Amino acid sequence: MYNESMYRLGSKRSTIREIFEYAKKRSAEIGAENVFDFSIGNPSVPAPSEVNEAIARLVQETPSVALHGYTSAQGDKEVREKIAANFTRRFGVPLSGDDLYMTCGAAASLTITLKALSVEGDEFIVFAPYFPEYAVFVKNAGAKLTVLPSNENMQPDFEALEKALSPKVKGVLINSPNNPSGVVYTEKTIKRLAKILTEKSGEYGAPIYLISDEPYRELVYDATTKVPCVMAEYENSIVCYSYSKSLSMPGERVGYIAVNPKMEENRAIYAAICGAGRSLGFVCAPALFQRVAAECDGLTADLSVYKRNRDLLYNALQEYGYTCVYPDGAFYLFVKALEEDAAAFCERAKKYELLLVNGADFGAAGWVRVAYCVQTERIEKALPLFKKLAEEYK
Amino acid sequence: MYNESMYRLGSKRSTIREIFEYAKKRSAEIGAENVFDFSIGNPSVPAPSEVNEAIARLVQETPSVALHGYTSAQGDKEVREKIAANFTRRFGVPLSGDDLYMTCGAAASLTITLKALSVEGDEFIVFAPYFPEYAVFVKNAGAKLTVLPSNENMQPDFEALEKALSPKVKGVLINSPNNPSGVVYTEKTIKRLAKILTEKSGEYGAPIYLISDEPYRELVYDATTKVPCVMAEYENSIVCYSYSKSLSMPGERVGYIAVNPKMEENRAIYAAICGAGRSLGFVCAPALFQRVAAECDGLTADLSVYKRNRDLLYNALQEYGYTCVYPDGAFYLFVKALEEDAAAFCERAKKYELLLVNGADFGAAGWVRVAYCVQTERIEKALPLFKKLAEEYK
Repeated sequence: MYNESMYRLGSKRSTIREIFEYAKKRSAEIGAENVFDFSIGNPSVPAPSEVNEAIARLVQETPSVALHGYTSAQGDKEVREKIAANFTRRFGVPLSGDDLYMTCGAAASLTITLKALSVEGDEFIVFAPYFPEYAVFVKNAGAKLTVLPSNENMQPDFEALEKALSPKVKGVLINSPNNPSGVVYTEKTIKRLAKILTEKSGEYGAPIYLISDEPYRELVYDATTKVPCVMAEYENSIVCYSYSKSLSMPGERVGYIAVNPKMEENRAIYAAICGAGRSLGFVCAPALFQRVAAECDGLTADLSVYKRNRDLLYNALQEYGYTCVYPDGAFYLFVKALEEDAAAFCERAKKYELLLVNGADFGAAGWVRVAYCVQTERIEKALPLFKKLAEEYK
Repeated sequence: MYNESMYRLGSKRSTIREIFEYAKKRSAEIGAENVFDFSIGNPSVPAPSEVNEAIARLVQETPSVALHGYTSAQGDKEVREKIAANFTRRFGVPLSGDDLYMTCGAAASLTITLKALSVEGDEFIVFAPYFPEYAVFVKNAGAKLTVLPSNENMQPDFEALEKALSPKVKGVLINSPNNPSGVVYTEKTIKRLAKILTEKSGEYGAPIYLISDEPYRELVYDATTKVPCVMAEYENSIVCYSYSKSLSMPGERVGYIAVNPKMEENRAIYAAICGAGRSLGFVCAPALFQRVAAECDGLTADLSVYKRNRDLLYNALQEYGYTCVYPDGAFYLFVKALEEDAAAFCERAKKYELLLVNGADFGAAGWVRVAYCVQTERIEKALPLFKKLAEEYK
């Protein structure tokens, strides 16, 4: 009567969405102030004031039909040109507006890119821990997801990569700053990745694409942390971006796909992206917010809150005896569960109204993810609960 | 290296988009005032003032994080409840917020619904003339499109339907007011359709869904024209809606899927829709515009312009000797080409800078579509050109 696999996807929501809905229900029962929802990556910091200012100005100054009308399927030309020029200036990669395709956010950037590239039998590689929706998106493209381990620093396990590569591998999908580990891939990592992919592409006579999912690109907290631009290191690379986190507007669904201008058959790949967007039903990215994004491109919400949260949480949890990955960026802390079964650990945390996400969903059994994109006061109030939780295990 | 079928979709854009881009180029060459682009269904009438007022108020009154944050995947609860209550009041079908799933516009409503319902080997039926992207969307769902003829009044050919129905047919997809014919399906048509589908569903022991694509629902011009609500007539029905045309904001990508509360397994179908939305990468419909849509639901842009255009164009073209379908609604006039080959006719029209869409793309060889959602002045200026074009054939 209907598609069973879609039914399962829809009725068994992602764990994160599940907890998000549980938190809403629990908040109604005991008051939102008593529920510590560390499950969802919903920015807690307002959008920079420029976002609402841009909305107000655009609404005032632009005739309605132009403002709210369709843009070209790949996005408004001026928007693309402005963002491409910024990209060129910031990352030193000469990008033109025609290398950019505006999307309805990161998920769309990924489903479109994967669908554009995939043919039957294709495989995409990710490194654990990884954002679990990748599995859904890769499946939608008719391809297979292969999950490889990371090393102890949460950088890719290159030996595993070299073993796993084969002519069936269409691409490697990375996410740095990483959700859920918060780790940033170093320049050394990207260079080594590029070297291996270049060699293997040559060996197989077909490009292996590097797809870089970068919604957290601007969310790094130490002056020494740099997020290297994959395009500078590897020609057959595609950047999937979203303004959700940088501009604190995840509900507005706007992002882009940038196709490396140096990529082999750049124009054909770009056309396939246009085709995939059309096929999936995207038509164009939301028009007003395309323009808002262009005006605010490069700005960020006030990241000092996330930095404060990170420092507070990381330091306290280390002190309480938790093992944590030091998060260079994003707004997640990856913590080792205090018992082997992370699901049981999450259930025990629930007793304290601490809502954590089981790392198993990210391909990392025995870990949990704590999204610290909340008000600092929530962290402060939660710390004694994390302490009590740790004490249960002593 | 990439998906060839996506490449073809992206490099050979829809004819409509193709002309849209040609018009832009041509306008740059000879001035926009000399190009008569009747190709794209981009509303020419400003959004009702309530749209921009709602944007301004929401931006002023709603905290940024709530305003621009993720909504539930199925859409903001209050938004869904408000729209459902309006739906109930307007159409007499008791709809709840949980029967509604907010989408990124009509294309998304369709790709999600089709993907939710389809299993391998499924078939969907449409009646020509039909919106050509249906073929793309049905293919994306892994199903097969079967095109049936309409009768001389552009209502479905029921004999053809009865012959074409089989246990493989998962659904019938209708679009009324119709793009490209402008015709509204009468209550008699919907009742007869419901009767046939009920009988055949019973015979096969599985529901045949009626999917009603209704972006033009409010765009009708005669007091006597009523657009019947399919849900009142047929239980296994799904309404796909978009605010693009009614509120003149096609670029903002907001619409919904309404699942008939009386449908068999309503909850499972709804879950499959949630799953399909997730799988395709939609996450949630644009948050601010979900709320704008809820506030403006039931309003329309100033339709008097379209009515004036319709009357002007229809009457003049009839007078010049064209054969036209009388359009009850939408903003398209379907006109018989003056030579057998409508492509040649469109090329000849181009000489007069009249940009028309070949009906072959809508499954109706020998016809052309004239989108009259333009400024009335454009129609007035184009009429002498239509006259000259007709004279060429005398």
